[in-house]
Amino acid sequence: MDYRFSTNVANLKSSAVRDILKLTQGKDMISFAGGLPAEELFPVQAVREAADRVFTAGTGALQYGLTEGFLPLREQLCGRMAAKGMAATPDEMILTTGSQQAIDLLIGVLTEPGDIVLVEKPTYLASLQVFALHGLQVVAADSDEEGIIPEAAEALIKQYGPKLLYAVPTFSNPTGKVWSEERRKRMVALCKQYGLLVIEDDPYGDIKFKSEENYPSLFSIAGPAENNPIIYTSTFSKTVAPALRTGWAIGDSRVIRMMAKAKQAADLHSSTMDQQILSQLLRSFDLDAHIALISREYGDRMLEMHSLLEQSGLSDLTWVKPKGGMFLWVDLPEGMDAEALLRCAVGKGVAFVPGISFYAGEPKRNTARLNFTHNKGARTVQGVERLVEAIGEFTVRS
Amino acid sequence: MDYRFSTNVANLKSSAVRDILKLTQGKDMISFAGGLPAEELFPVQAVREAADRVFTAGTGALQYGLTEGFLPLREQLCGRMAAKGMAATPDEMILTTGSQQAIDLLIGVLTEPGDIVLVEKPTYLASLQVFALHGLQVVAADSDEEGIIPEAAEALIKQYGPKLLYAVPTFSNPTGKVWSEERRKRMVALCKQYGLLVIEDDPYGDIKFKSEENYPSLFSIAGPAENNPIIYTSTFSKTVAPALRTGWAIGDSRVIRMMAKAKQAADLHSSTMDQQILSQLLRSFDLDAHIALISREYGDRMLEMHSLLEQSGLSDLTWVKPKGGMFLWVDLPEGMDAEALLRCAVGKGVAFVPGISFYAGEPKRNTARLNFTHNKGARTVQGVERLVEAIGEFTVRS
Repeated sequence: MDYRFSTNVANLKSSAVRDILKLTQGKDMISFAGGLPAEELFPVQAVREAADRVFTAGTGALQYGLTEGFLPLREQLCGRMAAKGMAATPDEMILTTGSQQAIDLLIGVLTEPGDIVLVEKPTYLASLQVFALHGLQVVAADSDEEGIIPEAAEALIKQYGPKLLYAVPTFSNPTGKVWSEERRKRMVALCKQYGLLVIEDDPYGDIKFKSEENYPSLFSIAGPAENNPIIYTSTFSKTVAPALRTGWAIGDSRVIRMMAKAKQAADLHSSTMDQQILSQLLRSFDLDAHIALISREYGDRMLEMHSLLEQSGLSDLTWVKPKGGMFLWVDLPEGMDAEALLRCAVGKGVAFVPGISFYAGEPKRNTARLNFTHNKGARTVQGVERLVEAIGEFTVRS
Repeated sequence: MDYRFSTNVANLKSSAVRDILKLTQGKDMISFAGGLPAEELFPVQAVREAADRVFTAGTGALQYGLTEGFLPLREQLCGRMAAKGMAATPDEMILTTGSQQAIDLLIGVLTEPGDIVLVEKPTYLASLQVFALHGLQVVAADSDEEGIIPEAAEALIKQYGPKLLYAVPTFSNPTGKVWSEERRKRMVALCKQYGLLVIEDDPYGDIKFKSEENYPSLFSIAGPAENNPIIYTSTFSKTVAPALRTGWAIGDSRVIRMMAKAKQAADLHSSTMDQQILSQLLRSFDLDAHIALISREYGDRMLEMHSLLEQSGLSDLTWVKPKGGMFLWVDLPEGMDAEALLRCAVGKGVAFVPGISFYAGEPKRNTARLNFTHNKGARTVQGVERLVEAIGEFTVRS
């Protein structure tokens, strides 16, 4: 049988993270590769009790639901968004299968094949896959320690006329960077000036290592949902649990309605079982206290990895110490190819993601993303030892 | 803000069913419109116990999962498929958010905008939405009481060179028809002859009113998964519960791998909470006995509606008595517009779906789809009375 596949899908590279995970199966492998939360911190008992209350509510809990998602959860989430200065009503919100689906639906409703999307360099690899599947061109603006560089973004806007900006301004994947408030305000002004829509992807914003620091969302800077050029998306995957696959988007109701039309064709609706469990959870469980707890723990794990790298004696290794999120982005010695390093590292029993996966255009090959949330203690120590050993071998060779 | 939406999405008509559901909210409305299973038959206690066992297994249950879906459930489903003569391995299966997502992913990986898809006339309205969103053209072949007419299909294949056939051969939505075995064999031969891929959508095949009647799937007629031109999709939505949003597709592993690539961008994976619950459910719950129970009950409900329509005294109303599924397809008197009838019917407190929604091209306007599974007894009696009254008024007027 001759299966002729869609060109966009056939040409899509499989995710490096997935391929690495396959390499690591069934071995004594310490993985800094996946973006996995710490399993032992999942609030499994609270989720269990929430699920039980859903079943107690009766058989109606198992029926078809609304495409936009379970209304009580949308109402609760609007309350949580308001506490962060984001004004939206349940009609300006849609629940999705993780925030990944929100990105895919938004790209589907806001672009046509051939359109151009502006991103920060480097950026989230699964967003690059969405852009490729939808036939979009990507242009990437440089960033510094304050975030995307407005002058670089403006030059690309003028040159290419992108349809929208995709950004992860808070504790980005892969670099862990956070945009300064001043930079956020300038970027919002720039997008308004050029009529550029923005997808603000915020899966990590809650995971702050200094609880007193606050980074207003681009959405909140731009105004309420109506007429807002920003569509904001986030998820429960990092704060509660990924298996419940529940993300959301807020934005102008016209955008949300279009997303609902597309979602109807895509899957009718996401799991209402999961949505009802989360709604029950929010009634009885102090999610903010839980977020504070995992943020402290992740901060400790980041510091642990940071110190181990500092103590490694590899003087030509650099990274920015992240203020939140789940990733540490490492610049390897000049000229070192992280993909070749990975093969060597996997041989020694440690995995990471080569930075190349996060670039739309010309990549920086000597970069690597390390996850610090899934391991701790002896595992992290041993993983960093193996990694340092692999880098050492490569430095000698080159 | 000027939101410029994708042409395909902007031009998509919202689902008639959704619009009708909005009309019916908050009123004493008897709805024969939605394709809703009977809530009171959901095995809520068994699902509750299954969920509890998932939580007992520990925190790992809440972690990210594979894009292809929870492996133990795929293994169990392969066993269930084998019992129906369908040979596939877990690598030839992917779990999706309902079978709706399987259709959307398949269309995404197997077609390019402008391709032509062949369907039976009329066909499932949410598949028509998928085709429209992917920029496909649709050609529709006539059918008779034996199913799609092979000569009509072949003429369209020769004339238009469609990329694939989308079919619901068993208890179709909307007509409730089932293709005869001879017709199935001829269509499989025809598709092989012309190198036509087939999406065989089978959400209703288990809901048989005569348990001794068996209808081999197109997939099983064509061979094992490898090199099979048929990709088969089904769901737990009608047999267990829609809220668990779990469907699956089986087919050649090359097709499944492409679907996984597309699904990674679409949502990373579906709810593993739901998948684990279903896997636990299948270990302890006699799903086949449950399917027999709901099939008997739905058969009784169909007979109830059938008898009420027969007794209505409306001699120019015709329908084929379904042998399974959830829908009764009615031909209204010649010249009657079902959309106009609906407005009158809603005024009297009963809703249905006008047939026009299920046609890609020129519709038969005097047709209506009635769901018989969600209501019974006095509700069904009163609903049919209201409907008959509405039709009576219209017959007098015309």
